[in-house]
Amino acid sequence: MSLPRIAITMGDPAGVGPEICLHLLANEAIREVCVPVVFGDAHTLFRCSQQVGLPAPRRFLTEAEWASAFSTLEESAVLDVPGFDSTGFEPGTISAATGAAAYRYVERSIEAAQAGQVAGVSTAPLNKEAMHAAGIRFPGHTEIFAAKTNAARSCMLQYSEEVRASFVTVHCGYHEVPGLLTKERIVDVIELTAEAMQRIRGTKPKLVVLGLNPHAGEHGLFGNREEENIIIPAMEVARAKGIDLEGPIPPDTAFLPAKRRSTDAFICMYHDQGHIPLKALAFDNAVNTTLGLPMIRTSVDHGTACDIAWQGKASPNSLFEAVKMAAKLWVQPTA
Amino acid sequence: MSLPRIAITMGDPAGVGPEICLHLLANEAIREVCVPVVFGDAHTLFRCSQQVGLPAPRRFLTEAEWASAFSTLEESAVLDVPGFDSTGFEPGTISAATGAAAYRYVERSIEAAQAGQVAGVSTAPLNKEAMHAAGIRFPGHTEIFAAKTNAARSCMLQYSEEVRASFVTVHCGYHEVPGLLTKERIVDVIELTAEAMQRIRGTKPKLVVLGLNPHAGEHGLFGNREEENIIIPAMEVARAKGIDLEGPIPPDTAFLPAKRRSTDAFICMYHDQGHIPLKALAFDNAVNTTLGLPMIRTSVDHGTACDIAWQGKASPNSLFEAVKMAAKLWVQPTA
Repeated sequence: MSLPRIAITMGDPAGVGPEICLHLLANEAIREVCVPVVFGDAHTLFRCSQQVGLPAPRRFLTEAEWASAFSTLEESAVLDVPGFDSTGFEPGTISAATGAAAYRYVERSIEAAQAGQVAGVSTAPLNKEAMHAAGIRFPGHTEIFAAKTNAARSCMLQYSEEVRASFVTVHCGYHEVPGLLTKERIVDVIELTAEAMQRIRGTKPKLVVLGLNPHAGEHGLFGNREEENIIIPAMEVARAKGIDLEGPIPPDTAFLPAKRRSTDAFICMYHDQGHIPLKALAFDNAVNTTLGLPMIRTSVDHGTACDIAWQGKASPNSLFEAVKMAAKLWVQPTA
Repeated sequence: MSLPRIAITMGDPAGVGPEICLHLLANEAIREVCVPVVFGDAHTLFRCSQQVGLPAPRRFLTEAEWASAFSTLEESAVLDVPGFDSTGFEPGTISAATGAAAYRYVERSIEAAQAGQVAGVSTAPLNKEAMHAAGIRFPGHTEIFAAKTNAARSCMLQYSEEVRASFVTVHCGYHEVPGLLTKERIVDVIELTAEAMQRIRGTKPKLVVLGLNPHAGEHGLFGNREEENIIIPAMEVARAKGIDLEGPIPPDTAFLPAKRRSTDAFICMYHDQGHIPLKALAFDNAVNTTLGLPMIRTSVDHGTACDIAWQGKASPNSLFEAVKMAAKLWVQPTA
């Protein structure tokens, strides 16, 4: 049985990305489920390995070597993506240069996936402010992948053993959310989530849809009846397609322990509605997946954590989980 | 040492209120910290005690008996508030009649507190739809107490051992929140919370203020700069008054385990921002307190739960905690 090649982006060089990638390359359990290839900067990884006392990667590939060797690769490796001056930055301090480099690794991994060279991509954290300083205007990975792949519809799924949530809206201002809720968008997110949960768990999933307002509007007492006018009509469309749905339920009772156990995934209307319970309950082992793309894409659920970067303190657990999830989402091609 | 008399409203007769009040009246530990007096309907409590197999209350008082006996009361009792036909309703089915009765018990308890007959009030759940059916337009207890006492400023504090949160806005539609945030309101909530936490915990509290937008706006990337324009200026005013404050922090990282342990209370901008983590982490032992009133007021943090009402299944734990908190907030009058 062959294993999928998974590209792992190194993330912002100044953050915890290099360090957690070194952990990953040295990990035996990861190599049992995939062939991990870190897309990043060779010299930065060397420098980081010396500073934090982790093993240096065993195999580096130039772009030319990658082009000829990727298809027969069986051990973990680093693709040395050119264009970053690894001596010109301070670990723990993001800059336009580190933001541009982090973005380049994402771009390069998407190209590799589109060319069929890797089965999927797992991303280490980038820093939005560093990217913005470099003139790159994406709010996050999810939006980069959606734009670069021209995905007709996509959404974020946060996955942990404790709780799972997908999102109708994500990176926008609080006040923008009601205007972004449409029946069509909610149906898309429900369908994408049902498909992914079926693939991951192997059984027909039970999904719970949250209301937008306190108490899910309480029959019009709070809000503009977004539940009655948008969410419930979307649920009727999805139910007619055979999806098992409950809701819209009051957001604050959704995450009670019994409900968490009986629910495969929660459909959330906005970022903090789902991220607050996810981080409170599964703070270092959630995986961020983008659904609806023409490729597998998973991510850590933490940021660049510059305050502890390059100090040997960062936990690689979330990256391990992200890479394992990418391997699990992979469907071995039939011969 | 004397004990405070605490009024406990019976809540909606059709919900779990009568049952949890019977548990309370029979509880030894409660009688060690206060003299509990249930404000409700005598016949409903009898009927409920027979149905669920709990001891009937030992002492009932008419209004006339209450007027002459309250000051010397030393055992738990029921004040039989007139005006409800206890044979004309179905347990588990709310109605205009049960909503009106539940409201009457709240009104009566506020009168008793204002007359100095009780030190504070703990409320069992009422049902907003039942109250609305009866033509009573308050969204919840918090607003009834604020209106009846003409409180110049008040706010909700949810208290549990695991996490504590107070609220700048509570019962309004999602879309209304940004328009309700003002510097003055946020300063009020911070001050009320600092005062209450000092009283409850006996030490200077450390408070954390949440942002409104995802990632607390990330320096203007998301939202209308509510953090820079409203929240931070409010924090500066409160800090100048000597209050220990951190923030505005990203809402989804506020409730990580380490941050929960180091924070006495979180200042939340809207209902679900604080209620989601509270219910996820402390689902049956949080106490709801209204700060800023001229009387002590605490409440259970659950609803009428009509699906399990009058079946012997309801947990009285949240009511026990609410009554204990009311006793804790009481300051014994100096002689």
